[in-house]
Amino acid sequence: MNVTVLGVGLIGGSVALAARERAGAHVTGWDPDPAALSVALERGAVDAVAPDPATAVADADVIVVAAPLGALDRAVAEALAAAGLDAVVTDVGSTKAALTDRFGGDGRFVGGHPLAGAETAGVANARADLFDGATWYLTPNATTTGLLFERLHRFLAGLGARPVAIDAALHDRLMAGVSHLPHILANVLVAHATHALGDEEHLPATGPSFRDGTRVAGAHPALWADIYLANAPALIEALDDATLRLAAARDLLAAGDRDGLRSWQAQIADERRALIESGREGGPARELRVAVTNRPGVVADIALALGRAGIGIADMTLAPSPDNTAGVVVLWVGATDAERASRLIGDLGFAVTTS
Amino acid sequence: MNVTVLGVGLIGGSVALAARERAGAHVTGWDPDPAALSVALERGAVDAVAPDPATAVADADVIVVAAPLGALDRAVAEALAAAGLDAVVTDVGSTKAALTDRFGGDGRFVGGHPLAGAETAGVANARADLFDGATWYLTPNATTTGLLFERLHRFLAGLGARPVAIDAALHDRLMAGVSHLPHILANVLVAHATHALGDEEHLPATGPSFRDGTRVAGAHPALWADIYLANAPALIEALDDATLRLAAARDLLAAGDRDGLRSWQAQIADERRALIESGREGGPARELRVAVTNRPGVVADIALALGRAGIGIADMTLAPSPDNTAGVVVLWVGATDAERASRLIGDLGFAVTTS
Repeated sequence: MNVTVLGVGLIGGSVALAARERAGAHVTGWDPDPAALSVALERGAVDAVAPDPATAVADADVIVVAAPLGALDRAVAEALAAAGLDAVVTDVGSTKAALTDRFGGDGRFVGGHPLAGAETAGVANARADLFDGATWYLTPNATTTGLLFERLHRFLAGLGARPVAIDAALHDRLMAGVSHLPHILANVLVAHATHALGDEEHLPATGPSFRDGTRVAGAHPALWADIYLANAPALIEALDDATLRLAAARDLLAAGDRDGLRSWQAQIADERRALIESGREGGPARELRVAVTNRPGVVADIALALGRAGIGIADMTLAPSPDNTAGVVVLWVGATDAERASRLIGDLGFAVTTS
Repeated sequence: MNVTVLGVGLIGGSVALAARERAGAHVTGWDPDPAALSVALERGAVDAVAPDPATAVADADVIVVAAPLGALDRAVAEALAAAGLDAVVTDVGSTKAALTDRFGGDGRFVGGHPLAGAETAGVANARADLFDGATWYLTPNATTTGLLFERLHRFLAGLGARPVAIDAALHDRLMAGVSHLPHILANVLVAHATHALGDEEHLPATGPSFRDGTRVAGAHPALWADIYLANAPALIEALDDATLRLAAARDLLAAGDRDGLRSWQAQIADERRALIESGREGGPARELRVAVTNRPGVVADIALALGRAGIGIADMTLAPSPDNTAGVVVLWVGATDAERASRLIGDLGFAVTTS
């Protein structure tokens, strides 16, 4: 398999290393920074370097665009323009709706977002095991070519990641809620402690709730300003929702409503428990065989239905061939998810048999 | 030394254990729950139990009221009514302004708040080392008897704690900022993730910022509702400030102000660093000798000036005698704080010599 990585920083470099070591792929790299390319070659992350993006993607089966958010649009456009008709193109950006809106009409493009590797940067820190067990969101749509989605899915699972298909807009709301809003609130905690407690006062000690809640405050200013902006619509929605919830808590306090505060706190305790439990790993994998008519988007439909229900797909294959008018999609999901997955796929109108 | 602990739960029981083991004190205990008293006796936390609070405090030098927030007012009033004129009475409640307003006119009362022990409860979990290195806020005022403050300070340092004198109102704003507001924001994050991301959607994965930021969400509903309410004025101020800061971040996002967001994020990074650094430990202790006229409140003035500047007092003694018209207060502070402490005390009009 020929894999091309455009942008060999921490993420791109780690994809390259894992693709060579774990998938036995031939990896071609390109980067606007020649020094990064040299390090990638020295570290054995890439087999070859290309002089420009178009040359780099010419013979690729899988193209991973690992450019920074500001350069992503142009890099994906270049990759799609130069890639073959049978190549799948993905990216690793942290927001997905805008990109999927722009490129989702091309069946070869599948948006991607691995949840890994925020603490360091650069190819020097790249590791083949960076994605082990990490959720890797994919945002296929009805236009996505099933064969190419399946190839990308299997490639990423082969790197050690857990690919999860998800609607692009939901992905962005999810990221706003579980990552971008926590960063903003961490910043607010630090700003409040710094400015609202009096300029002349040092903070003699902080509680563990403050330390935990501010660990990400002020993270990587240039990077995070871009992340906030790339997800501005969803993040603004999240901020508005958070503001309403703060106001509700303030009302309970101002009213001295002890019962109301206790109920709220107890409800949050339940909700937190439910969130934690919904994230738990399933048991061993079960195989699901789904008979499908080979219409466009069928693989994406199934993957999205499972992703929407929080069910990760451990592996996936198409049999006998996606070019036939009918075929079988074989999926592996966690044993505890198998029954639910089977029902969800059945609801889509497909016949499912489980191992 | 005779020490009385009213309320032998986790905090009271730990004070009792440490007082016996580390200060060689004779400890008398009382608790409205006879079972808790029995366990305290069995565990060797107290030497003796009393039938009622008045009997318990009759011969005490130091009285620690470790009652829950709802019962604190009445318990402190009872203790002051029954205690000798030479006893110091303190509490361990998490907010201080209301209590200090009510009882601060009595020179024997010093409000207290140890930052320790939120994860478990009950005398069964009490430990003599619970306060090792923990900040223990004290809120003396101009009426506080210097001799009694010094006795309490030395007693708490003997338990392993780091007593820090602080203005009661500032204490409450500080707690709102570094503890109560983080809890409210953690709750808001959980509520947003649960309700704003769509009822039918499971949350496939959460980032580390979400996990860190929600660790305390929904903590101990009954306890925390009372903590919020006890500090309602300061917490409402903090919520209002946080809401304004959220709105400012939203404005930057809505305006697409990349430079503004980068500056904000970078400023927060600096502020977070400053907060962390201001909390660092000093080196070895240095001795400061302060010549004072023995007017009321002089010890509290000095302790508050240092506490306000974030300087912890490792130990303190009054020499030759606080009853003379003039005397010497001997303080030990961290070596890196010694020069600043000396200047601050000099600013109060006292002559200081350092070791």
